[in-house]
Amino acid sequence: MNQHYQNIIQGIFLQIKNEENPGEVASYIPELANIDADQFAVSIKPINEDAHSYGNHQTRFSIQSISKVLLLCLVYKHTGEKIWERVDVEPSGNPFNSLVQLESDNGIPRNPFLNAGAIVVSDMLIDLLEDPKKEFLEFIRDITDSETICYSENVAKSELKIGYRNAALCNFIKSFGNIKNNPDKVLELYSLICSVEMSTVELCNAFTFLANGGKKVSDGKVILTKSQTKRVNAIMQTCGFYDESGEFSFRVGLPGKSGVGGGIVALLPGRYVIAVWSPKLNPKGNSYRGMKFLELFTTATEESIF
Amino acid sequence: MNQHYQNIIQGIFLQIKNEENPGEVASYIPELANIDADQFAVSIKPINEDAHSYGNHQTRFSIQSISKVLLLCLVYKHTGEKIWERVDVEPSGNPFNSLVQLESDNGIPRNPFLNAGAIVVSDMLIDLLEDPKKEFLEFIRDITDSETICYSENVAKSELKIGYRNAALCNFIKSFGNIKNNPDKVLELYSLICSVEMSTVELCNAFTFLANGGKKVSDGKVILTKSQTKRVNAIMQTCGFYDESGEFSFRVGLPGKSGVGGGIVALLPGRYVIAVWSPKLNPKGNSYRGMKFLELFTTATEESIF
Amino acid sequence: MNQHYQNIIQGIFLQIKNEENPGEVASYIPELANIDADQFAVSIKPINEDAHSYGNHQTRFSIQSISKVLLLCLVYKHTGEKIWERVDVEPSGNPFNSLVQLESDNGIPRNPFLNAGAIVVSDMLIDLLEDPKKEFLEFIRDITDSETICYSENVAKSELKIGYRNAALCNFIKSFGNIKNNPDKVLELYSLICSVEMSTVELCNAFTFLANGGKKVSDGKVILTKSQTKRVNAIMQTCGFYDESGEFSFRVGLPGKSGVGGGIVALLPGRYVIAVWSPKLNPKGNSYRGMKFLELFTTATEESIF
Amino acid sequence: MNQHYQNIIQGIFLQIKNEENPGEVASYIPELANIDADQFAVSIKPINEDAHSYGNHQTRFSIQSISKVLLLCLVYKHTGEKIWERVDVEPSGNPFNSLVQLESDNGIPRNPFLNAGAIVVSDMLIDLLEDPKKEFLEFIRDITDSETICYSENVAKSELKIGYRNAALCNFIKSFGNIKNNPDKVLELYSLICSVEMSTVELCNAFTFLANGGKKVSDGKVILTKSQTKRVNAIMQTCGFYDESGEFSFRVGLPGKSGVGGGIVALLPGRYVIAVWSPKLNPKGNSYRGMKFLELFTTATEESIF
Repeated sequence: MNQHYQNIIQGIFLQIKNEENPGEVASYIPELANIDADQFAVSIKPINEDAHSYGNHQTRFSIQSISKVLLLCLVYKHTGEKIWERVDVEPSGNPFNSLVQLESDNGIPRNPFLNAGAIVVSDMLIDLLEDPKKEFLEFIRDITDSETICYSENVAKSELKIGYRNAALCNFIKSFGNIKNNPDKVLELYSLICSVEMSTVELCNAFTFLANGGKKVSDGKVILTKSQTKRVNAIMQTCGFYDESGEFSFRVGLPGKSGVGGGIVALLPGRYVIAVWSPKLNPKGNSYRGMKFLELFTTATEESIF
Repeated sequence: MNQHYQNIIQGIFLQIKNEENPGEVASYIPELANIDADQFAVSIKPINEDAHSYGNHQTRFSIQSISKVLLLCLVYKHTGEKIWERVDVEPSGNPFNSLVQLESDNGIPRNPFLNAGAIVVSDMLIDLLEDPKKEFLEFIRDITDSETICYSENVAKSELKIGYRNAALCNFIKSFGNIKNNPDKVLELYSLICSVEMSTVELCNAFTFLANGGKKVSDGKVILTKSQTKRVNAIMQTCGFYDESGEFSFRVGLPGKSGVGGGIVALLPGRYVIAVWSPKLNPKGNSYRGMKFLELFTTATEESIF
Repeated sequence: MNQHYQNIIQGIFLQIKNEENPGEVASYIPELANIDADQFAVSIKPINEDAHSYGNHQTRFSIQSISKVLLLCLVYKHTGEKIWERVDVEPSGNPFNSLVQLESDNGIPRNPFLNAGAIVVSDMLIDLLEDPKKEFLEFIRDITDSETICYSENVAKSELKIGYRNAALCNFIKSFGNIKNNPDKVLELYSLICSVEMSTVELCNAFTFLANGGKKVSDGKVILTKSQTKRVNAIMQTCGFYDESGEFSFRVGLPGKSGVGGGIVALLPGRYVIAVWSPKLNPKGNSYRGMKFLELFTTATEESIF
Repeated sequence: MNQHYQNIIQGIFLQIKNEENPGEVASYIPELANIDADQFAVSIKPINEDAHSYGNHQTRFSIQSISKVLLLCLVYKHTGEKIWERVDVEPSGNPFNSLVQLESDNGIPRNPFLNAGAIVVSDMLIDLLEDPKKEFLEFIRDITDSETICYSENVAKSELKIGYRNAALCNFIKSFGNIKNNPDKVLELYSLICSVEMSTVELCNAFTFLANGGKKVSDGKVILTKSQTKRVNAIMQTCGFYDESGEFSFRVGLPGKSGVGGGIVALLPGRYVIAVWSPKLNPKGNSYRGMKFLELFTTATEESIF
């Protein structure tokens, strides 16, 4: 990555670091609330180069909903296009945990990045794999080339314990027949998947195959076909930020996905992956600093998919 | 454009032309219903080359909702970012003429490509220009370099006469204070704008500046800034096909816009604009053949923004 | 009416008159806003006795939505049960001017006391009568035995001029085919019907036939059959107070109807009609003092339909 | 009860028994599906006389949602008006198990006769009583003067096992904080309460205090105050038949409550209680024959609360 780019990134990073950092850390479980709220990390990984990073880029954090993309990829890889019989690809226009549309859509979630959608995909994973918990972890360790990435059982348990809204979603979908397994089992797996912890560097590595036509860069292994890769990126573009997806597309112009732990990952197909982390969230539940960084970054580089 | 491309386009064009053409022509006004339903045209215009066309590419048709993009550009050019105080940029998850979200959103339409949104933008146009009807026509004649493009007063009048849903939308928004002028006046202008007639070649020309960073190719005139251009393309990507926007993004992967007259325009920024026209519509109100052509085209070329 | 009753009414009247009178006068048109907000009147009319009244009972006020009951009766009288093909009898659970349910119910209003419902009934009146404006007035003059009751053309005009929400409702219903006449014509009649002015005594007289099995008391004329009368009362019970209908039924226990002018009329079948007027409204749009009076009255008398 | 009444009832009973009996028996659990679908029973109990019965009036059936009224009475008796802080008294305009309104109403159910509402009331019962399961049974045995009335543990278990929609409702409300106990515990009690089995005669006895100002007839014990009794009857009137409540009020004109087991109970305050049972349901989930019987009955007697 040339010096020009590095200068841009460093400049924006320092600017934002020195500005006010409003917003609120997710506080619904102690594990997310008791975090140093001013941490801030950025990593950028061009496809064929090493990553450049700034700030707390070695600290692992809870990637939460970002994990839904990796879950989707693993299930999509196994099922092919059949997956879309049970989950749609339309933006929802509603918050991430809304039940309203499910009622009119007969239990088919609008997209796989809503909680409802990822719960259905988790249910599919159970039927696809012998040991879904173990094999999902192997999958993300493989795509990141990092053997130490783990679930946080504590975060998963805490989340499960107070996850009444998700229990409502799962039972509601089950009442329409679009969940096959026991709701408690599905929710346990779903919570575990969301509890994965990574650093911004690892997040870049995990998503590089999506910027590279579906192939891992390190060993050339095909994770998804070109067409599937395009489709996952398209869903990130239209649905990656809940009811702020249009706004993100409008301001940043890259496919991406955010998590309530304060992480955001975005990518420019054929070029690079960029990951940002800062725990304080805006009112829509996306990282305040993360959104700002990415907007300033694509404005400065004048590079986006549009 | 190299021969390889021309071969791909021609091949797909012929394939679709020979297949069944299901769907229904828009029939709510006689002017749209009484059309030869099997017409089919494709034009592609690389930024710096002449267009290549197939089928009925010299026939003008009612571009209908495609006109909303050009309307947005003209108002955006004049107002800058202030426009977003009166219309949002989020996908709606609802059909094009739904009133439901307006009620919970206090009269702020979800995006400028819903009827509700374009009606608000039409209202803004009235306050911005001396003679909005005349100046909008001048604007589209300028960007297409075609002096003969016109409104169809007949289509506009027919549409206005039975446009009870649009009258409902306009009065509803007015009740929230987000329409400033007389509803009848706003609806008249809106219907006129949607009645513009173009051929697929002209449609390509009209959208070329959006594939070219905001500048007209023929004379280098700046229509929108780079940032504004990116943003209009982003809205097309997330909102251009009503509640089939996610599906289009998923299958085709280009920003685009459809109209009930059977036209679709899409573009690959920095590369080309492509326009398709065929009057029969799928159940979501988008051209059956148009959607199919674009899906096969981006699959064959393996080129999309993702 | 025995002295015991008179004492109860007078006692409650004086108590409320001396208490604070919170709430807001309807202010959307000048004719309703520029009223002495502390006026307060009560009239009770036992079926076979003269009315007893307190406060400003000779002052006429705009009965507004209360008129919807009389409109319903006149149309019901002419059409019989066919009326229910175009308007339902279910409570809506939504505010009086909501459009949401109309969309899922394909233009059939939930009940005739929503604006949407009364607009459809007005449309029916146009097709039933030669001169609906004149004949509706004759009808209410007949049932009240008062030749001087009139529309307020000023109120009707003001209301029509800013009635964008009603214009939205009417056009929306028209788009589903459940309005037959020109929307402007329907809205003009509807506004006129709502502009009728009466005193609380006249309001009691107007509703006496509904407490008397459908017959006028003064001359025995049959306005509605017994069965129709029961049905109109039932709709008042379940739908007479918008999304506060359950609350009114719960607290007061009588079928009744309120208007935004501050009037409320209620009745105990076989016994009496009671009308209250005080212009300040609670947040649900019903007269603050009116609701309070009726609750205290049925609590004190221990008489309700339950 | 005089001979005239008995003749009317017997006549209608025989007429309906000889007519077609369309509709479907509730089939979601085997215990309800495997029932003789043509059973038909009617009992009427004037306040101060013995009941008269026709058909299968000694057969006990699953009273299901009818039990929600008795549950409400028991909790209301203990809490007084505080109960309304956690459940509203408005009709919902939606089916019995809809989640939509809960989302906009922040977890406060519209009324205690929706599943959502009865689940909240069940949650309150747990906090009010030492042994809610035992004491609820004692309560209904007391008001019916029948020591053999029981829960059906089988029905309760079957219902619980496939009650995903109720689990969704309960967890959803819990996510808003309006359920205090463990959702599984609440749902277990709720299912048990709905599983009570009674004959039409016992149903009449159970509801007689509500027709008698809150007092048991047999021993004069006060179950509810007069005011509370009026209020429970008012809620039955506006909310007793889900989204067919307006229709029932319109056609029958009595406060009442239906259950998915095919039972309906209704009452004329100060006069009598009437219970009907026939398992086949109309599309809204209310007994086909039961609705018909009550409509013909109040039409023939010309007695209703209106």
